[in-house]
Amino acid sequence: MSGRQQVLVAGAWRDEVEPIGELRAHNPATGEPIGPAYPVSGRREVEDAVAAAVAVAETFSATDPERIAAFLEGYADGIEAEADALAEVANAETGLPVSPRLRDVELPRTTGQLRQAVRAVREWSWADPVIDTAGGLRSVFGPLGKPVTVFGPNNFPFAFNAIAGSDFASAIAARNPVIAKVHPLHPGTSEKLGRIAHAALVAAGLPAAAIQLLYGVDPSCSDLLVGQGAIGGVGFTGGRSGGLALKAQADAAGVPFYAEMSSINPVFLLEGVLEQRGEALAQEFFASCTMGSGQFCTNPGLLVVPRTAAGDAFVAAAASRFDAAPEQVLFSGDGKRHLNAAVDALRAAGAERIAGGGDPDRPGYWVRPELLAVDGARFLADPASLQTEAFGPVGLVVRSDGHEQAQAIARAFEGNLTATLYRAADGRDDAAASALITLLRPRVGRLIVDKMPTGVAVSPAMNHGGPYPATGHPGFTSVGMPGSIRRFAGLHSYDNVPDALLPPVLRDRNPGGVWRRIDGEWSTGDAGAAG
Amino acid sequence: MSGRQQVLVAGAWRDEVEPIGELRAHNPATGEPIGPAYPVSGRREVEDAVAAAVAVAETFSATDPERIAAFLEGYADGIEAEADALAEVANAETGLPVSPRLRDVELPRTTGQLRQAVRAVREWSWADPVIDTAGGLRSVFGPLGKPVTVFGPNNFPFAFNAIAGSDFASAIAARNPVIAKVHPLHPGTSEKLGRIAHAALVAAGLPAAAIQLLYGVDPSCSDLLVGQGAIGGVGFTGGRSGGLALKAQADAAGVPFYAEMSSINPVFLLEGVLEQRGEALAQEFFASCTMGSGQFCTNPGLLVVPRTAAGDAFVAAAASRFDAAPEQVLFSGDGKRHLNAAVDALRAAGAERIAGGGDPDRPGYWVRPELLAVDGARFLADPASLQTEAFGPVGLVVRSDGHEQAQAIARAFEGNLTATLYRAADGRDDAAASALITLLRPRVGRLIVDKMPTGVAVSPAMNHGGPYPATGHPGFTSVGMPGSIRRFAGLHSYDNVPDALLPPVLRDRNPGGVWRRIDGEWSTGDAGAAG
Repeated sequence: MSGRQQVLVAGAWRDEVEPIGELRAHNPATGEPIGPAYPVSGRREVEDAVAAAVAVAETFSATDPERIAAFLEGYADGIEAEADALAEVANAETGLPVSPRLRDVELPRTTGQLRQAVRAVREWSWADPVIDTAGGLRSVFGPLGKPVTVFGPNNFPFAFNAIAGSDFASAIAARNPVIAKVHPLHPGTSEKLGRIAHAALVAAGLPAAAIQLLYGVDPSCSDLLVGQGAIGGVGFTGGRSGGLALKAQADAAGVPFYAEMSSINPVFLLEGVLEQRGEALAQEFFASCTMGSGQFCTNPGLLVVPRTAAGDAFVAAAASRFDAAPEQVLFSGDGKRHLNAAVDALRAAGAERIAGGGDPDRPGYWVRPELLAVDGARFLADPASLQTEAFGPVGLVVRSDGHEQAQAIARAFEGNLTATLYRAADGRDDAAASALITLLRPRVGRLIVDKMPTGVAVSPAMNHGGPYPATGHPGFTSVGMPGSIRRFAGLHSYDNVPDALLPPVLRDRNPGGVWRRIDGEWSTGDAGAAG
Repeated sequence: MSGRQQVLVAGAWRDEVEPIGELRAHNPATGEPIGPAYPVSGRREVEDAVAAAVAVAETFSATDPERIAAFLEGYADGIEAEADALAEVANAETGLPVSPRLRDVELPRTTGQLRQAVRAVREWSWADPVIDTAGGLRSVFGPLGKPVTVFGPNNFPFAFNAIAGSDFASAIAARNPVIAKVHPLHPGTSEKLGRIAHAALVAAGLPAAAIQLLYGVDPSCSDLLVGQGAIGGVGFTGGRSGGLALKAQADAAGVPFYAEMSSINPVFLLEGVLEQRGEALAQEFFASCTMGSGQFCTNPGLLVVPRTAAGDAFVAAAASRFDAAPEQVLFSGDGKRHLNAAVDALRAAGAERIAGGGDPDRPGYWVRPELLAVDGARFLADPASLQTEAFGPVGLVVRSDGHEQAQAIARAFEGNLTATLYRAADGRDDAAASALITLLRPRVGRLIVDKMPTGVAVSPAMNHGGPYPATGHPGFTSVGMPGSIRRFAGLHSYDNVPDALLPPVLRDRNPGGVWRRIDGEWSTGDAGAAG
């Protein structure tokens, strides 16, 4: 016995097998290690997990969806029953406040997401059943028949946790076993979630190996989790370099890889709205850019502000807020190093610090919010460097000279999760807004008007995704049921298959009133002979 | 002037720029070159084409869909007007019969497909509009905002031609410019189609550079067409090695790559049906396996036949047909070499020739249909080698001992486009069929009962696709509107965007009666305030 915590592998919590190291959580405010030690899994443990997931995939694929729904529902209930304890350990491991965040925002979001998956499973809304009566063909999305690996990020210990978040719920809803590689910065939170999840799984009568949990996996073993044909798909949320390394392994093995990697989420403030309410926008921007110490995928990292008097006033107002801002704590020392390196890269490319910044020089992972600025012309001379993501409470203002330069800036953007426009209420900015929308539309997943990008609603019309390199595929969202589920599904066509051999959702009779597209029209009725 | 035919680049038919070679069609029956010479494009030509496509993408993305529909409709009309001439040149270049195939099957299929794309564009069925009134979010699939490259295969000079087939129609329907790299074995057919297409494009008032055509591109230039961020997506139909080489380039650049690469399309003949109609099945199998000289992606390449008396009788009946079959002509000498190499690989792994085969030893690309057989146990000892695709009129019979071995064989299959089951009409095979369906379902795109796989209907419930390595993504079909269009689309979410700034399909009022999912229910009515 090493005294380390147990992993969830092959259907049970068990002691580590041939681990290659250990990890611990840290108090971000002090940098001190906290809580027990957790194993970093080695090759043998990972092989065991994959073998167990593969072995269970066939049964799990054929599971009655009602059991899947019962599991996800039981899990959501279980999380709520331990909400206070979960918030406490997540707070200790991440430094995120219990309120307003972990207990009252992120945890309800997480259980709400699990319950939206339940609804999608029961309504079959993710499965897009299509019936062509004349052609004798029917199709529906179904399980991959192989396990899905989920890699969770550091910044949402509940809502994007590999054992509780959207990727997890999505993969399970499509009836795929999940191997959860949780983030090593919040192992205690993840273990607690994993224990609730596993109990709910067993209570629902599902195979005990259908979900597994590893805290840390050496990069030398990641090929087992993403780079072989035994794996059906991968969900990854995290930084770009780690994501691209895993993506290369998945690509080589033909494994669909859904990454949500990086985004600077440009925001355009148009001339009219700056005249109307520049001061209020300065506060709105500052709050969004520094919320959660700026550690959001949809943090507004780049602001395009016209070089007008109102634009100058806005920048001054924003700068005064950054100057006056208290120090903030990041999740880790690595995070702080990456943030500093990103700021250095932005400055090397010509951005100037106009407010805040500087190293607090105290224990823990503290930083000062910082505002940078650069000329539009300068930005256009080196748009790649000046789109370096600074993951933290740092914003870059790009000052644009006229509509044409603002449009050129929009054309220079890489794929992003979001782009935002603020325009005057009286319509005077609408022509400029329309022109920018045309340019920004294909470059981002979500286009936002008059609102900061940091809120990501769990909505069927959400796209928390976007063109590469924001993600690996422009057609899928990682948040929002039922769309997020379809990432982990295969398209199953049935040709000339008699009613009795079809899955129930494709049979003529439709007692559950499922929405199906029958001969081009959506219907909740029966099909064919029974129609 | 080299006297070579012109390429369609940057909006006009023009003489080649710095080509690196030339190509000509051949008469497959004699191996003699026919028709004029066509340029093999070099780097500069390909760069010109990509630059022109990128330049036009913004305008094309914002095109009124009705113009797109008018183009596709005009193109279909134009093809019909020149149907006889098209069939004549395609027959000369491919050796496929004018009837029953090019003129009366494949050409109508091609125009039908273009018209299904027209319908999908007008009905917005590919775009999946979603409205969340409470959340203030709306989403719809839209263009990539970048060009799509399409690589056409050798085996369908019309229906999968890069300038006329499903990938072409799909990419255009989603309002993406297309660079068509047609197959070098039928350049004359492709040029003819390209001229009709371009005239229809211009007549519809669309940008002249929105479609481009290249006959041959040196592999050293393929990075330009697939491996850079300027490209929005790729459709490829062809062999596995070429497909994987391109896929690696696309993957590294984050470009979605849809490949339809290889498939052996296993067919299970169950015990009862062999007793009931084994002789008829032998004819059905022989016809399907040798149709079009076996050069179909869905050719039934592997048959699982139980080791019963009725199974023996079936194999004998099939063998006699292969023995008596006339020689058949393939598309090319390369095709013949690949086929012979595949048969050699199958035999090296333990398959035995039981009928037909042998080299006709005459000019042109002639082969004799061939039937091979192998024991179930032997198959299970080396399933990878015994799944080598033999692209031509060659079948491999795997003799299975009992249901358990048949199921083990099913479990050993790689991803395939199709799997087929034949079962007795009286239900005696249905238990065995159900067990096999569970195993085969996640391994194939289309599951077929009592019918050979070679027919691929252009149906909304078709999946001409399947898990890797049959394709690059298990969730998409390359045939069947509207699904095939969605491959070349991005998910566009709109957050808090006022009605006037939304695309018309997402506004409250729905004068066209488009099917939209509003707050979880499909509706053709208005939304929100207007609802």
